[in-house]
Amino acid sequence: MSEFDLIAHYFVRPAHPKNRATLGIGDDCALLLQQDGMQTAISSDMLVEDRHFFAGADAYKLGHKSLAVNLSDLAAMGAEPVAFTLALSLPSADEPWLANFSAGLFALADQHNCELIGGDTTKGPLNICITIFGQAPIGTALRRDTAQIGDDIWVSGTLGEARLALGAMRKEYELDIATLSAAAVRLYTPQPRVTLGLALRGIAHSALDISDGLVGDLGHILKKSGVGATLNVDALPAGAALQNQPKELRRRFTLAGGDDYELCFTAPVSKREAVLGAALAADTNVTRIGVIDEAPGTRLLDRDGQPVDLKIASFDHFA
Amino acid sequence: MSEFDLIAHYFVRPAHPKNRATLGIGDDCALLLQQDGMQTAISSDMLVEDRHFFAGADAYKLGHKSLAVNLSDLAAMGAEPVAFTLALSLPSADEPWLANFSAGLFALADQHNCELIGGDTTKGPLNICITIFGQAPIGTALRRDTAQIGDDIWVSGTLGEARLALGAMRKEYELDIATLSAAAVRLYTPQPRVTLGLALRGIAHSALDISDGLVGDLGHILKKSGVGATLNVDALPAGAALQNQPKELRRRFTLAGGDDYELCFTAPVSKREAVLGAALAADTNVTRIGVIDEAPGTRLLDRDGQPVDLKIASFDHFA
Repeated sequence: MSEFDLIAHYFVRPAHPKNRATLGIGDDCALLLQQDGMQTAISSDMLVEDRHFFAGADAYKLGHKSLAVNLSDLAAMGAEPVAFTLALSLPSADEPWLANFSAGLFALADQHNCELIGGDTTKGPLNICITIFGQAPIGTALRRDTAQIGDDIWVSGTLGEARLALGAMRKEYELDIATLSAAAVRLYTPQPRVTLGLALRGIAHSALDISDGLVGDLGHILKKSGVGATLNVDALPAGAALQNQPKELRRRFTLAGGDDYELCFTAPVSKREAVLGAALAADTNVTRIGVIDEAPGTRLLDRDGQPVDLKIASFDHFA
Repeated sequence: MSEFDLIAHYFVRPAHPKNRATLGIGDDCALLLQQDGMQTAISSDMLVEDRHFFAGADAYKLGHKSLAVNLSDLAAMGAEPVAFTLALSLPSADEPWLANFSAGLFALADQHNCELIGGDTTKGPLNICITIFGQAPIGTALRRDTAQIGDDIWVSGTLGEARLALGAMRKEYELDIATLSAAAVRLYTPQPRVTLGLALRGIAHSALDISDGLVGDLGHILKKSGVGATLNVDALPAGAALQNQPKELRRRFTLAGGDDYELCFTAPVSKREAVLGAALAADTNVTRIGVIDEAPGTRLLDRDGQPVDLKIASFDHFA
């Protein structure tokens, strides 16, 4: 199977009435129409074998996750998904792998009406690079540098289960099969919070998606906005599989787990009802976990207002 | 050096008045303003060590080439460069390498006023994935599916030198130092034909860039346009370093060398003066090498009109 056959067979799909690209796969560039009053939101993520996923990982789930992490970036900006490119380095033209990978990829893409418009295919160590394009009316995108003192800090869904699954797979501890299976769903097939991100436009002051751990990622909002935060550690929404784990592990994994792909956002106190309404409309739970304040850094308190001392490290690829 | 320090140090640059992104590196997404009447042209290329470049390749030149191959795709569409994302997988945070790579990358980016707006950095086998964004007024982009019977076929610059250098490095043959040095410039630091591509809008019927070899790449225009081609093999512009090589090798490398990054385009006979005017304005030589005709496939003739039988294979990553 040649490079061009491979692309034609697994990645080129029949024209669909919902497609928005003027020109898709097969030319030097794809073409997307621009519209006055809109901004294009662009994000790129690279997934590497043995780094972001285990060698031999299920190809269908990998297809899902590769796109999910990019959709999560659009969600964090409140941008509507439009299209994406896929650059793929593969050790060989493994057809069952390609069939499963593209099936997982397109299942999620179709759910979000996000069209594959181009990319590259080459031979090499397994590496998946997706660049995604979304759009939002000018001035509505949710940024990191616009949190305000007094804002509530919110988080969507639950945290820590992906990290719980990862630890068991790395033999840091053992989990029973049921717990591991439940947690692994979060690790392998995260659900990007696109609908919630869109619903939060005009409500949230700032937002990002949690990929490297809550405290580390929230730190980006704090730094860029020139503010600090106080979090109620006991308010953090732990995933169901974490409920029966030791308290210290539960706290550590919700605060600094990684691979959560939930939204962390800030909104003024006056918008609490609006936030809850947006969450209801998006069918996604949200939890108020702290406040934006003036002193730089993040303070962790327990439910009684007592400081919690946890050594928190967010994930760093070169640390 | 952490992942975030690395990005801040080598890839984040001071704001520049010519920047067009509303929001650049450091948020979940970058933001680019849309404009009525414009189309965004998007292309993505992935470069893998030992596949697209030798292990230990000069980092400055690699930075140049990584962006050049993407700019070449914009050139082939007649799209003006705007911005790009860079996803980089690195074995380690090698600072001299990063300093040189980013210097080569930005030198070419600045030449084309093309801004780095985001991306990803991770640990893994060396892999460079750039996605580039350009723009062109609606309906002006140069496509592959719009060649017409009777069109002249043109090529920019000269062909074959990159392949000549590659062969010497692979020990297929020996070259004297002067010849190898001259040819290697084409392999390592191709100059994307952006100005020519822009000048050909409204003149050329179709275009693409030659990355896998002239005959193979021209085949994409033929297939998508439902036409054929007859080429005058002796009209092909061979690079200077190829002039003293055996005729058979010169023919093979100009027809199917690869890594040329020249434009191949078709234009009606009535536009010959306009093509030459565009070439002059872009300070780029162009050569008329054949005609688009009806019978599918490509026919190779010599200067006397006699058929030339060369086994031509374009590059295929999985062949």
